[in-house]
Amino acid sequence: KQFVEKITAMEEDFAQWYTDVVKQADLVDYGPVRGSMIIRPYGYAIWENIRDILDAKIKETGHENMYFPLFIPESMLQKEKDHIEGFAPEVAWVTHGGDEELQERLVVRPTSEVLFAEHYGKIIHSYRDLPKLYNQWSNVVRWEKTTRPFLRSLEFLWQEGHTCHATDEDAAEETRQMLDVYASLFEDYMAIPVLKGRKTAKEKFAGAKYTLTIESLMHDGKALQAGTSHHLGTGFAEAFDIRFSDEAGELQPVHQTSWGFTTRSIGAMIMVHGDNRGLVIPPKIASKQVMIVPVAQHKEGVLDKAYQLKTRLSDIARVDIDASDKSPGWKFNEYEMKGIPIRLEIGPKDIEQGHAVLVRRDTGEKIFAAMEDLETKILELLEDIQINLFEKAKNHREDKTSIAKTMTEFKNSLENNPGFIKAMWCGEQTCEEKIKEETSATSRCIPFEQEKVSDTCVYCSKPAQQQVYWAKAY
Amino acid sequence: KQFVEKITAMEEDFAQWYTDVVKQADLVDYGPVRGSMIIRPYGYAIWENIRDILDAKIKETGHENMYFPLFIPESMLQKEKDHIEGFAPEVAWVTHGGDEELQERLVVRPTSEVLFAEHYGKIIHSYRDLPKLYNQWSNVVRWEKTTRPFLRSLEFLWQEGHTCHATDEDAAEETRQMLDVYASLFEDYMAIPVLKGRKTAKEKFAGAKYTLTIESLMHDGKALQAGTSHHLGTGFAEAFDIRFSDEAGELQPVHQTSWGFTTRSIGAMIMVHGDNRGLVIPPKIASKQVMIVPVAQHKEGVLDKAYQLKTRLSDIARVDIDASDKSPGWKFNEYEMKGIPIRLEIGPKDIEQGHAVLVRRDTGEKIFAAMEDLETKILELLEDIQINLFEKAKNHREDKTSIAKTMTEFKNSLENNPGFIKAMWCGEQTCEEKIKEETSATSRCIPFEQEKVSDTCVYCSKPAQQQVYWAKAY
Ligand SMILES: [Zn+2]
Ligand SMILES: [Zn+2]
Repeated sequence: KQFVEKITAMEEDFAQWYTDVVKQADLVDYGPVRGSMIIRPYGYAIWENIRDILDAKIKETGHENMYFPLFIPESMLQKEKDHIEGFAPEVAWVTHGGDEELQERLVVRPTSEVLFAEHYGKIIHSYRDLPKLYNQWSNVVRWEKTTRPFLRSLEFLWQEGHTCHATDEDAAEETRQMLDVYASLFEDYMAIPVLKGRKTAKEKFAGAKYTLTIESLMHDGKALQAGTSHHLGTGFAEAFDIRFSDEAGELQPVHQTSWGFTTRSIGAMIMVHGDNRGLVIPPKIASKQVMIVPVAQHKEGVLDKAYQLKTRLSDIARVDIDASDKSPGWKFNEYEMKGIPIRLEIGPKDIEQGHAVLVRRDTGEKIFAAMEDLETKILELLEDIQINLFEKAKNHREDKTSIAKTMTEFKNSLENNPGFIKAMWCGEQTCEEKIKEETSATSRCIPFEQEKVSDTCVYCSKPAQQQVYWAKAY
Repeated sequence: KQFVEKITAMEEDFAQWYTDVVKQADLVDYGPVRGSMIIRPYGYAIWENIRDILDAKIKETGHENMYFPLFIPESMLQKEKDHIEGFAPEVAWVTHGGDEELQERLVVRPTSEVLFAEHYGKIIHSYRDLPKLYNQWSNVVRWEKTTRPFLRSLEFLWQEGHTCHATDEDAAEETRQMLDVYASLFEDYMAIPVLKGRKTAKEKFAGAKYTLTIESLMHDGKALQAGTSHHLGTGFAEAFDIRFSDEAGELQPVHQTSWGFTTRSIGAMIMVHGDNRGLVIPPKIASKQVMIVPVAQHKEGVLDKAYQLKTRLSDIARVDIDASDKSPGWKFNEYEMKGIPIRLEIGPKDIEQGHAVLVRRDTGEKIFAAMEDLETKILELLEDIQINLFEKAKNHREDKTSIAKTMTEFKNSLENNPGFIKAMWCGEQTCEEKIKEETSATSRCIPFEQEKVSDTCVYCSKPAQQQVYWAKAY
């Protein structure tokens, strides 16, 4: 079959499978600069769907959209020390404008904390000005050495929320609220189960007090950080002098958060749901939910019927039709590869018998649905596919989650059943570093739902403080 | 009154009036790099509305969205000679990534013709691949020397459409179709009348065969180019080797178009509809169409009623309420300045008498509307305001349009009634240049609707070829 030739089997070479799928399903092409990507219409339509869902949630929770400039003066980036240290190695520098050399170099934003901070310093004066809840949709640039489409690219699209609050507690609540928004987007729309927790000090965002994260597990057993929400504390407020007079008239620094969600999420969707036939897109974010493929379309009445169905079903779902002169077999493969949730086949016999054939992308199951039941059946199927994808991904994650009480168990799990490892940790960064050195697994999160799998640190055997999820990660 | 202090009268100093309005109405703030702007929530919400309307029209006409990278290698920009000459003086250059100097400098996209062209060269092979109709929403950078918020800034937001066609005629049709889409957006949504026409060779886009434009007139009598649509001919196709085999199997270059619409349009909206009290926003693009201001809100029942109205009216319009402890007088000024189409006042007496007070932003007219008629009345008013703004702007433009048969008339009009000047032209670039030198007016367009105002060129008195609209422009 054709798809076998185009897509490397995932068991054989997962990285190659991924590259084949993003290219063959026409999600991206490579840009002219190493590591940059062109997002093709089919990929961009998925991003538009995800973006619109998230944007509505961001607005519902009281945030407003703004737009900040692309360029940051070097001196401004340097105001917060941890922040510049974290980002300096991976920024792009603008040194000339037109024919002139600039007096001060400009950074192409890798993130906009400092721009928001400077602005907040100007507009916040009193406790009455708080909270300030702003968000931005934009492109950002990070000069990565090794890149892969969606997962790690020179430039990516994202939203970054930046908020200011009167108290540490308010900021903490916001940090958690936005993590929950991300988790809901992943679980309820993208059908990707996530673990919620806190990053260790080593893995937190440069300049943050702490970072919350949602972590998902890919098909190959590697973890992917799906979204992060940072409690920034007062670090940027001190560096940028963002102060308000409280009700007693005393000047106080604001407490900040920031949180981001990127086109990386599309990479997660591919690696969680995809299979050896290509993409599998959850119905809620699919730009096309039903693809109509006419069979024997040269026969009288077939194309008419197919177009009628398209019009009729467009009231309840995102429906498209392929009436090109390519063969039905070619079309079946093509739309399987593109991961469209339902294929609707309609031919002369089906018309005669008053039904259409529905084929589920997730299970391959064929359903004969009477013409008059099509709406009901399709809506049922879309819901069913959405739930099934989530359940499958959750079961996969559970199958790939191990407990390790010793480093021997830890290494065995990584070797024999790669995925998440639950293990206890003493809280010392040295143990975290040693584990990474010896296994290349990193701490993914300290989950909110703690489970005491043993009493001692998996590395040093000292009394344990917390349970941590470990994994090799993207 | 307070607004008089905040906003310079437009008759006194139009440029200062503009600057005051964009700042006081909270549309923008200045960014840290000279000439860059921060788009504040109130300004960004207007952009979101305009963008969503245009995006729907772009999709309805069969185009698909994509996303191309921000950076262009210098060598790629140089492939089309006219194009690089046009843009080289105003681009920003990236020379370093992280700690390393790049082997080849990168341009921060000022427009993406070359990126699209390179991509099209890869994906187009046969006449069956045509037309290709792609669009992108993004930020672009132009290193401008003098800048003003929205009108001319270092970075702006826009959409750029880029299409490929099998024939010159198809490309011509597309060029015209997209100009009409822009014209409809301006006239039917932004209430801004536009002149449609073609740019002279001198004013066309760098690399185009010809450029179509819509031109609008600002309150001060200066013109603003509201949107452009370029027929690119086969120039980029030759430079980037974008060829297809036609039905006879012969290799042919594609015929291309490109067309763009930017945040500049917000500047036009401000300068066409605004007045000495501030912004006036056409209802169809206003993020808030009705602002409820409770009067004597400490009196029992007022706030309850006001919030009830907000909930009730939100079914038919975009409604907000200001229940802060600021005075009604302050609120009246504030929302007039922000240009919200209708103010709804509700106080104890109004409640007693079973009505609410509606105040039109465009005329200041006060209407007492019975409670049960509010929906009808508000919908009527919104429509009426939309129409009235368009008519006012159209009348203004007509009042400010003169005919010139000689350069003396030309200069008199510019002096005494600045606006558009209709005059005949011989078609020689030298005359166009001389007129610009002597008057600083430029040719705005050769209108599709030609009017023969005399027989000879306004400058050289040789036989005239075409009627041209001239004006000083932003
Ligand atoms: Zn330890
Ligand atoms: Zn002449």
